[in-house]
Amino acid sequence: MPQSTDELKTQIKRLNSKAGQIKMDLHDLAEGLPENFENLLPLANETYAIYRQLDELKKQLKQVEQKL
Amino acid sequence: MPQSTDELKTQIKRLNSKAGQIKMDLHDLAEGLPENFENLLPLANETYAIYRQLDELKKQLKQVEQKL
Repeated sequence: MPQSTDELKTQIKRLNSKAGQIKMDLHDLAEGLPENFENLLPLANETYAIYRQLDELKKQLKQVEQKL
Repeated sequence: MPQSTDELKTQIKRLNSKAGQIKMDLHDLAEGLPENFENLLPLANETYAIYRQLDELKKQLKQVEQKL
């Protein structure tokens, strides 16, 4: 059963705040290099996963809204 | 045959400038998220490889210098 726009919007809102936080973590790590370079890949992978999921949810929302 | 300090220093110098450039590229990409998020992992992998190599060369230089 496809999710409702409200459910999608709630998920997007929650993920957006996570994305905003991890974006700053990645920004700070990049700025602090070479310090902490060992954490770069785990953090980049986590950041990518969040932004890809966010991208997919936004596409789903667009599709659901077009059907209304 | 272990490299001389001069050879190691030249390599470190060259890699340092590459590291400085890619650090800014990663910083800009992080700042621009969600834009361009598809390039995050390739760029993070390249950045990690450069900083790990730099770390190893610096350790080698330390060892060579301690033997002098």
